[in-house]
Amino acid sequence: MDTRELLENIKNGTISIEEGERILRRQPFEDLGYAKLDTHRKMRSGFPEVIFCSGKADPFLVEIFGRLLEEEGEAFGTRASEHQYELLREKFPQVQYDTVSRIIKVEKPGKKRIGRIAVCTAGTADIPVAEEASQTAEYFGSNVDRIYDVGVAGIHRLLAHLDVVQEANCIVAVAGMEGALASVLGGLVDKPVIAVPTSVGYGASMGGLSALLTMINSCANGIAVVNIDNGYGAGYIATQINRMAGGSGE
Amino acid sequence: MDTRELLENIKNGTISIEEGERILRRQPFEDLGYAKLDTHRKMRSGFPEVIFCSGKADPFLVEIFGRLLEEEGEAFGTRASEHQYELLREKFPQVQYDTVSRIIKVEKPGKKRIGRIAVCTAGTADIPVAEEASQTAEYFGSNVDRIYDVGVAGIHRLLAHLDVVQEANCIVAVAGMEGALASVLGGLVDKPVIAVPTSVGYGASMGGLSALLTMINSCANGIAVVNIDNGYGAGYIATQINRMAGGSGE
Amino acid sequence: MDTRELLENIKNGTISIEEGERILRRQPFEDLGYAKLDTHRKMRSGFPEVIFCSGKADPFLVEIFGRLLEEEGEAFGTRASEHQYELLREKFPQVQYDTVSRIIKVEKPGKKRIGRIAVCTAGTADIPVAEEASQTAEYFGSNVDRIYDVGVAGIHRLLAHLDVVQEANCIVAVAGMEGALASVLGGLVDKPVIAVPTSVGYGASMGGLSALLTMINSCANGIAVVNIDNGYGAGYIATQINRMAGGSGE
Amino acid sequence: MDTRELLENIKNGTISIEEGERILRRQPFEDLGYAKLDTHRKMRSGFPEVIFCSGKADPFLVEIFGRLLEEEGEAFGTRASEHQYELLREKFPQVQYDTVSRIIKVEKPGKKRIGRIAVCTAGTADIPVAEEASQTAEYFGSNVDRIYDVGVAGIHRLLAHLDVVQEANCIVAVAGMEGALASVLGGLVDKPVIAVPTSVGYGASMGGLSALLTMINSCANGIAVVNIDNGYGAGYIATQINRMAGGSGE
Amino acid sequence: MDTRELLENIKNGTISIEEGERILRRQPFEDLGYAKLDTHRKMRSGFPEVIFCSGKADPFLVEIFGRLLEEEGEAFGTRASEHQYELLREKFPQVQYDTVSRIIKVEKPGKKRIGRIAVCTAGTADIPVAEEASQTAEYFGSNVDRIYDVGVAGIHRLLAHLDVVQEANCIVAVAGMEGALASVLGGLVDKPVIAVPTSVGYGASMGGLSALLTMINSCANGIAVVNIDNGYGAGYIATQINRMAGGSGE
Amino acid sequence: MDTRELLENIKNGTISIEEGERILRRQPFEDLGYAKLDTHRKMRSGFPEVIFCSGKADPFLVEIFGRLLEEEGEAFGTRASEHQYELLREKFPQVQYDTVSRIIKVEKPGKKRIGRIAVCTAGTADIPVAEEASQTAEYFGSNVDRIYDVGVAGIHRLLAHLDVVQEANCIVAVAGMEGALASVLGGLVDKPVIAVPTSVGYGASMGGLSALLTMINSCANGIAVVNIDNGYGAGYIATQINRMAGGSGE
Amino acid sequence: MDTRELLENIKNGTISIEEGERILRRQPFEDLGYAKLDTHRKMRSGFPEVIFCSGKADPFLVEIFGRLLEEEGEAFGTRASEHQYELLREKFPQVQYDTVSRIIKVEKPGKKRIGRIAVCTAGTADIPVAEEASQTAEYFGSNVDRIYDVGVAGIHRLLAHLDVVQEANCIVAVAGMEGALASVLGGLVDKPVIAVPTSVGYGASMGGLSALLTMINSCANGIAVVNIDNGYGAGYIATQINRMAGGSGE
Amino acid sequence: MDTRELLENIKNGTISIEEGERILRRQPFEDLGYAKLDTHRKMRSGFPEVIFCSGKADPFLVEIFGRLLEEEGEAFGTRASEHQYELLREKFPQVQYDTVSRIIKVEKPGKKRIGRIAVCTAGTADIPVAEEASQTAEYFGSNVDRIYDVGVAGIHRLLAHLDVVQEANCIVAVAGMEGALASVLGGLVDKPVIAVPTSVGYGASMGGLSALLTMINSCANGIAVVNIDNGYGAGYIATQINRMAGGSGE
Repeated sequence: MDTRELLENIKNGTISIEEGERILRRQPFEDLGYAKLDTHRKMRSGFPEVIFCSGKADPFLVEIFGRLLEEEGEAFGTRASEHQYELLREKFPQVQYDTVSRIIKVEKPGKKRIGRIAVCTAGTADIPVAEEASQTAEYFGSNVDRIYDVGVAGIHRLLAHLDVVQEANCIVAVAGMEGALASVLGGLVDKPVIAVPTSVGYGASMGGLSALLTMINSCANGIAVVNIDNGYGAGYIATQINRMAGGSGE
Repeated sequence: MDTRELLENIKNGTISIEEGERILRRQPFEDLGYAKLDTHRKMRSGFPEVIFCSGKADPFLVEIFGRLLEEEGEAFGTRASEHQYELLREKFPQVQYDTVSRIIKVEKPGKKRIGRIAVCTAGTADIPVAEEASQTAEYFGSNVDRIYDVGVAGIHRLLAHLDVVQEANCIVAVAGMEGALASVLGGLVDKPVIAVPTSVGYGASMGGLSALLTMINSCANGIAVVNIDNGYGAGYIATQINRMAGGSGE
Repeated sequence: MDTRELLENIKNGTISIEEGERILRRQPFEDLGYAKLDTHRKMRSGFPEVIFCSGKADPFLVEIFGRLLEEEGEAFGTRASEHQYELLREKFPQVQYDTVSRIIKVEKPGKKRIGRIAVCTAGTADIPVAEEASQTAEYFGSNVDRIYDVGVAGIHRLLAHLDVVQEANCIVAVAGMEGALASVLGGLVDKPVIAVPTSVGYGASMGGLSALLTMINSCANGIAVVNIDNGYGAGYIATQINRMAGGSGE
Repeated sequence: MDTRELLENIKNGTISIEEGERILRRQPFEDLGYAKLDTHRKMRSGFPEVIFCSGKADPFLVEIFGRLLEEEGEAFGTRASEHQYELLREKFPQVQYDTVSRIIKVEKPGKKRIGRIAVCTAGTADIPVAEEASQTAEYFGSNVDRIYDVGVAGIHRLLAHLDVVQEANCIVAVAGMEGALASVLGGLVDKPVIAVPTSVGYGASMGGLSALLTMINSCANGIAVVNIDNGYGAGYIATQINRMAGGSGE
Repeated sequence: MDTRELLENIKNGTISIEEGERILRRQPFEDLGYAKLDTHRKMRSGFPEVIFCSGKADPFLVEIFGRLLEEEGEAFGTRASEHQYELLREKFPQVQYDTVSRIIKVEKPGKKRIGRIAVCTAGTADIPVAEEASQTAEYFGSNVDRIYDVGVAGIHRLLAHLDVVQEANCIVAVAGMEGALASVLGGLVDKPVIAVPTSVGYGASMGGLSALLTMINSCANGIAVVNIDNGYGAGYIATQINRMAGGSGE
Repeated sequence: MDTRELLENIKNGTISIEEGERILRRQPFEDLGYAKLDTHRKMRSGFPEVIFCSGKADPFLVEIFGRLLEEEGEAFGTRASEHQYELLREKFPQVQYDTVSRIIKVEKPGKKRIGRIAVCTAGTADIPVAEEASQTAEYFGSNVDRIYDVGVAGIHRLLAHLDVVQEANCIVAVAGMEGALASVLGGLVDKPVIAVPTSVGYGASMGGLSALLTMINSCANGIAVVNIDNGYGAGYIATQINRMAGGSGE
Repeated sequence: MDTRELLENIKNGTISIEEGERILRRQPFEDLGYAKLDTHRKMRSGFPEVIFCSGKADPFLVEIFGRLLEEEGEAFGTRASEHQYELLREKFPQVQYDTVSRIIKVEKPGKKRIGRIAVCTAGTADIPVAEEASQTAEYFGSNVDRIYDVGVAGIHRLLAHLDVVQEANCIVAVAGMEGALASVLGGLVDKPVIAVPTSVGYGASMGGLSALLTMINSCANGIAVVNIDNGYGAGYIATQINRMAGGSGE
Repeated sequence: MDTRELLENIKNGTISIEEGERILRRQPFEDLGYAKLDTHRKMRSGFPEVIFCSGKADPFLVEIFGRLLEEEGEAFGTRASEHQYELLREKFPQVQYDTVSRIIKVEKPGKKRIGRIAVCTAGTADIPVAEEASQTAEYFGSNVDRIYDVGVAGIHRLLAHLDVVQEANCIVAVAGMEGALASVLGGLVDKPVIAVPTSVGYGASMGGLSALLTMINSCANGIAVVNIDNGYGAGYIATQINRMAGGSGE
């Protein structure tokens, strides 16, 4: 029984006011159809459900991937292993797997992309995280410029691509080790910088915590930080920001 | 000598090509007028310079405040003490000081504000940081809705203001202690959530680090984090995002 | 307009079903009277609102204390300073202040207490936190046995009071430094032990974090931990547990 | 020689008073039969001994499992590996193993359960820990309601099951990543919430420490925390609390 | 009723065997006179009670100091403030206060000291902690050699006093900053080294934690560590060790 | 040329005084025969060289083990792997390997042991570290009493062995998880307690750091701490202390 | 188009001043030939590019190694695995691999070395990191003295080599566990000490963090620290320093 | 008796060879005149003793300052308070105090400076630490270029001074907050960069630890790090490096 039905029953006397009051108090959420609305909102907003594959049991992964594919006509999973790719390919031969980003997907052809996001990395070892961000943003409909290996230890490499960076609606800065790239980018652009610390490094990098602290403490304006190695999260919020600008991207 | 002068001198032969090449290589930045351009860019983009008052020596603060006031017609400082207010008021009697946010400013009358940012706090003790964020965003030209004391320990308080939150272009979530507010907000809205951990709490809150970790590890999408108590930083990036949406706000 | 009014208006046609559906979807919470219910629930359950005084501005503290006193006939604040006591005493001369626990209150006379909670401390320096726990539990209607200064460095002191401890429905273990008291208690009783690490100590006690870790890692069964110095929280949950047993306490 | 024998020997003069005094002073514990009493107390209280299988050597595990089975008629082990299951099944073919919770057991048929515990998880990855809690509580005689995947990033999922949660005598909140579930639950119920941080997460989750800190710092009342991934400990203390309420559960 | 009385009553039939058994089971500890024995043991062993003055309330400190003085004929307090000295001097004019070690005491004249403990410091700033150790050891009856300011940055200073160090029964190594002194001493002597990290330092010394870690990780044999700044604890255990050697010290 | 030769050459004029002075200043150590003296001292003091096997390359281990065996007539290695045992057994068939302590050795027959050390563990999982301590102490000539599985969660188990513990010259307390055993022991005995935190545990035990912190913060007197899992170090310093007492052990 | 071309085009009117100004503002870096200059600078300064092999994909490693070999006539990689050695040897049979330092290289014959760097280690387990430092410094043209296994637990071993250490232009101190070697060296020499903490150790060594903290907190003058296990970095900066002294080394 | 006397006595038979051997073994260091040599070495090398004033007792400071002034003709103290300045000025009216660097000194007139060190800061708040470094280096005889407020958030400011930076023999990079300045400098110069993290910042800067971690993890070559706020240490090692280059500085 959904809200409308309830109210109709109130009106026609099938349900008393006291009973209606009780129902609304006890189960305000499912009766209001929240879960369904949620699904609708996602589809409307262009953020379809995404699967975090790591650690998912085989049958569960196949089922959820299949259900999403059926409902949305496409499906997208992050942190997928080679094994999971083999598994899904058996049942969905059209599935695509990228060994760098570890993204597995079936994507609708001809999707339009808008705006422009610049995804920068400090080193080549940060590229897997950056690709997770880039491909997530692309799947969600953003144009992405990849500017990799422009770490601050050779600042001229970054400066050489300044125009591309400055034209983006949002910049994603992916860096491990000392993580200083975000600060430099924050000082060079007027747009929000989403900083992604990576677990790249050794010794006192402490699995990315040092880079995280660097980014959180940045003295530049317009920087906010997501979790270590969270390329997906950066691609998501960058897309939210990019959509606001609403440009066609080229 | 700025870039144009240099090129004119090259063209008219006052400066030889070799000499021009040398100048450009040695001092590419000031000759290109970077510092000045920077000021121009700031004025164009609506982000005038801001003063971090904490720890500034008295004469330095008076001088820099005065210079900004002269150049921009307004001036804005964060983390100002009562003493600094007394100091500035002597010379600039029109200065305004807010003891809650510790913001000190002279603001141009009649500035237009656009869009809409929702600033939420978990408790009343988070309000000083939230006010730093709110007033920063307002100074930079954003409309702000304040939704304070809606922490997750009484989730109905937040849900009661859901419509206001959902209409904002960007949400600022200010919370200390366990910092769970950001996650709940992230699950309720489609817009970017800028999370601000605060140093509110005691014991294992470790000066805000616990709240910071909570927010960084959030399982919700669309959340990015700034430094502990960094209301200014949140107001800045929220304004960047709000400007993209470009709405008039009413 | 509360839920009942809405449903009556639906029934009598003042509000259309479509409009009712819209209202319920947009503002499900305040219309459902959540905030009010919350207050009712608190009164029913015997957990009246409590004030965390630390950091509250003077006028705000006076106002909230007065409002609670008016509504509930009693009021209870934790972490109150001497200054706050002076402040409140001016307006509410009947207010009582305990310098050890820093609890400030006006309590209804003749309140009945039930059950039995044992509050143990490792040392004498832990007593302020223990008193916050004890007096909180008493205010909420529990009988409390205080067994102080029975730390594990002299285990016989604790063993000498074993019968009192074993008769309680819930034991609160308050300890700083190495915090081992909770483990020993957990091995000696059949009832839940609520462990409260305190910031007592120096050097590597790290403001109570060491005691917190000790307690969380306890190899004994039936132990759960609250925040450092959080006597109030321990008194609250101990009362929840004590009420379940429901005994009269003597 | 137990206490009774000693006293009889004192009375009939076989042992002098001085000798009796000496014996009591030197060996107060085994003479008092503590170890045996302990076993009796456990059987009376319904908390039979439980085996922490992880790291136990093969012959030791078989022996201790067999001995418990013989004495109690049932046996229960946590953190058991597949290998340990194979090992025990050879000798005790009736043994049951659950690959999710990694619990291995032989349980007496027809055990009665009382009361009601609600075990909630934030995500699906927290289920193994939650099952350890749930099955522990059930083995110890509690009824359990499982409410899984109701994390705060989609708060409506939790709210939809509010009535089940509110009817429990104790709630177990199992969550990794940011661990905010416990705070939200604490604000929605009147009963004690036992929070279990899990090691689910990556990056700055630091093996569950971030979730632990979130829960310890919770601003909600009535929350206490056990060790990371300690489902068993949560099931144990939740049962202690549930028994106090003493209800029949249905 | 103490143990002897109980047994006598058992023997003469005043108390039945069943009742005697019950009493012994319920109160095994105070009846066995543990607390009293404890006091006796302390006096016998030469470790009289010591007062940790820091944070003690004024009247409590005066009372406990007076009681100890009366019982033992001497009294010894650590971490005493100037204020506490003034306070005690009023009532006990014979009290002595050392502003460096912050030890306050009344000591019996003519106490004999035995053996030999060497107390070394890395720098002059470590001397207050070293003096707490030295004077504690002396009060407990050990001879002490003070070898101060022999840190590893000038290793020849330490080597110049090697013979004194090598003749001690126990060496106390007091060092802040990098705390390397303990390792060097451990390599130069055959006797146990008790390492005391101090909170001396700044920056990454983290209040002594860095020195603590250095000492705990020492690659030298025969080193064990006490808490940061815990001179008293080092003096205590060094005396325990020194007493074993039992030499006369000169 | 050793010191004696140098002095003889000085005396007989083969080396001039100036040259002798120069030699002593430049190479004071090898000329003074330090390295050799070191070996002598070790043999005299009964602490022969010991091999830390973990990570040693195969040929290096065989060579050093063989050299020690040849020089001392016995050899002792800690943290040896099964592989290293196989390797050494090929060449030295008399070698003995203990899979619990991971100690590998050839020991002279008929060595005399003196005094008495009590090695206690909190649980059974701490036994490998305890055996490293016990066997090290025995190899160095101490009698050892093993009192295992007497953790504070069942304090009666420890109290039942109190007489054995109290008769030792030094107590080694081995405990992981919350590590409270050392504090309880410290309160029960008059002799030095060497505390060994172990990496036993999970979750917030952080590889033994929590137990280390517990032990360092102990409120009991007479406790000093060695590194996590450092059974060897505890056996070494306990032997140093035991030797001072010099008793025959029975 | 490089700077010269641009200026020539300005002068001859092919490019307008306005256009020139725009180009210079937008692309100041590549036009200035930075990237090229960078390469030139490296060759001139004698620091050819070096490959961090760890984690490099196979084809990428082969390509970059080949390209460097072609351009420079030599190539040098750190942290190479056995597998990477096999891989490179197939294509470049002249490649040399050192299993201790994990350095892989082809080096030009007859390279001249200058000055003198002393590389010291505390233990034998630190040698791999020390060899990375030593061989890096040698590849970059420095003479290196290796002084290994001279840790502070046996300070005479270090003192015996004091003359070699004191003659170096720069000292590299490599140490894990407690890391005290750097402080002792800093007190013995007049030249800069580059300290390299290693991850050698266990327990509270925390992967080298303890050694890092020891070194950072050193009370000796003239010490600066690089990342844990960063032998390459130490060899690099030591060479920079050694080159300044400019001596021939023998 | 010094070494020469000893040898003379050996030669003329006043001291027997056996006795001489014993003396050398027992007191090898003071007899070799180490302490005196040390003083000589310092004077020769141009690093006179320096006083760390913070925490020095008043009479001790006056005495040591006076003694140094007498011996060296100049004296230099760091971390001096205003009070200490007043104190010293009474006795040594020629003393100079700089409130920014908190350096107090009497310096010989006409001292020559050599070479060139560039001291850079990220912000203005880092200047006190930078001045401690700069003035230390100057006191020790180095020329210093101050390049302040060139943090990475406005990278053009740094690039504008690139030529000055590149001409220095050693660069000191002083930065708090995220500390990225060192990495950028490391990528721009060929000379060693000594990085000084500062405690400037708030929130997650953790008193400079974040900046320290950033600098230690730097991906640039040629960077080594000193303790937080340790300007003196940076000035010292930078001077050591600068002296090697030996240039005249202009």
